[in-house]
Amino acid sequence: MIKLKDCLYDGSSKFKLLKYPTNAGVEKAKREEVEALMAANKERMAQLQDMLYAQGKEGVIVMIQAMDAAGKDGTIKHVMSGLNPQSIETYSFKQPSKEELAHDYLWRAYCHLPKRGNIGLFNRSHYEDVLVVRVHGLWHGYNMPARCLEMDEKDFFAQRYQQIVNFEDHLFQNGYRLVKLFLNLSPEEQKKRFLARMDTPEKNWKFSAGDLDESDLWPQYMDAFEETIGATATKDNPWYVIPADQKFVARYLASEAILKALEDCDPHYPELSEDEIAAMEACRPRLS
Amino acid sequence: MIKLKDCLYDGSSKFKLLKYPTNAGVEKAKREEVEALMAANKERMAQLQDMLYAQGKEGVIVMIQAMDAAGKDGTIKHVMSGLNPQSIETYSFKQPSKEELAHDYLWRAYCHLPKRGNIGLFNRSHYEDVLVVRVHGLWHGYNMPARCLEMDEKDFFAQRYQQIVNFEDHLFQNGYRLVKLFLNLSPEEQKKRFLARMDTPEKNWKFSAGDLDESDLWPQYMDAFEETIGATATKDNPWYVIPADQKFVARYLASEAILKALEDCDPHYPELSEDEIAAMEACRPRLS
Repeated sequence: MIKLKDCLYDGSSKFKLLKYPTNAGVEKAKREEVEALMAANKERMAQLQDMLYAQGKEGVIVMIQAMDAAGKDGTIKHVMSGLNPQSIETYSFKQPSKEELAHDYLWRAYCHLPKRGNIGLFNRSHYEDVLVVRVHGLWHGYNMPARCLEMDEKDFFAQRYQQIVNFEDHLFQNGYRLVKLFLNLSPEEQKKRFLARMDTPEKNWKFSAGDLDESDLWPQYMDAFEETIGATATKDNPWYVIPADQKFVARYLASEAILKALEDCDPHYPELSEDEIAAMEACRPRLS
Repeated sequence: MIKLKDCLYDGSSKFKLLKYPTNAGVEKAKREEVEALMAANKERMAQLQDMLYAQGKEGVIVMIQAMDAAGKDGTIKHVMSGLNPQSIETYSFKQPSKEELAHDYLWRAYCHLPKRGNIGLFNRSHYEDVLVVRVHGLWHGYNMPARCLEMDEKDFFAQRYQQIVNFEDHLFQNGYRLVKLFLNLSPEEQKKRFLARMDTPEKNWKFSAGDLDESDLWPQYMDAFEETIGATATKDNPWYVIPADQKFVARYLASEAILKALEDCDPHYPELSEDEIAAMEACRPRLS
């Protein structure tokens, strides 16, 4: 069966999106087995989260990028729902507000960084600013001085990629681990899921005609994803390209990636010094 | 008389703090003349601020670093008080809060960046994290993973300087201009000002015994300032080392630096297109 390391891209070779499957081809018969593995992962994640919080030394930031209907919300719901919400800080990157647009594009990501000790969960992320912004050429309409805009598209986004690499290096150097997930869906599977949204009354609310317009731009989006992932994966902050056509596989692999980051943090409950234990023990009489 | 360009350091040579005077030696008889120049600067600053805001294209961030009693508050009060407070966003960098300490050290600066179109005013700044943090070795007590701390002091701060340069490059590339002011005071003048704080009842509230402890670390602070300014001045984001022993001179030079940044932004009131003017004119009947 597909392993997390098959999804890893750390920038050490040229990135080709087509090398990564959208469908891992896991037999349906294996579904229960995979779900049991994921349940075990979630239990371990909860233990590690508790120690991560107690120690407050390192933060984990999970960011999920994908085309519509690739399973962002479902992955979050199924993978993260066993965790303690008290030390999770989530932020959904929607169309930027006027206030967000009045700042530099990394500002909204920066302001929503989790505390160290917490898990940050970005539903979409600052990568929107090199994906949708590129595909729709939105940057041409930005209200910014000439020095920021008077260059061709390639240079503009090369500069943004470098800014993002610097930003993420900075986070790694200051106590954060990033889990960058791309849920890699096929356009055929996306169509099926859109139809399911139309055919299932409980899913109607998720349907949006605008999503079909984005879907028409599939090749442009894949080019943007390929270039973005290729330019922003590093050894410290790699990308995971997760086959998303099978939901149970995608969720399991996402749990593997998050679990790995938590294990890499190697959290422990803080140990008190002898003096601190003595001071704690000195409190005992007040409790009798 | 001393000019702003005499205070400029843009990283193009080796930085020696001792080359920059603390006292510009401007004759007292010239005081009125200098104050008149500053009044003219303030008037022009207010005009430019109005256009900067109307256009919303570029932001200016003024950051003031100095030893205690060098005139940070006074400079802000006298130089900025003619501006429209509605488009000024100020933040005073005090001892970091628990929440600030739980994030990376640039987080509090990032969260308080002004909108483009506004002027941000940092009383102290992210530079505290390479000044007081270095002089007092506070970084040894940080609750961060080993990879962030297990290095010698020189490497730790070299990394931070690079992070700051990246951060400030990013701001410049995304529509901000920084005005980095170091108010360069002599220890003798500082002592006089501390005594004035003791001797003047209206200034007593500004006196703090802790300031004297910091003053005892003068050579260490000067080393830290020298290394910091040397490592973080660039052509796009230079430092101004402003002689601060004469308050009226320091204030004038600070106004020169801020005015220069505003002039560099070259703001204009937005011009409407013919269509927009027609649409505006179409509203006229509703007002008669």
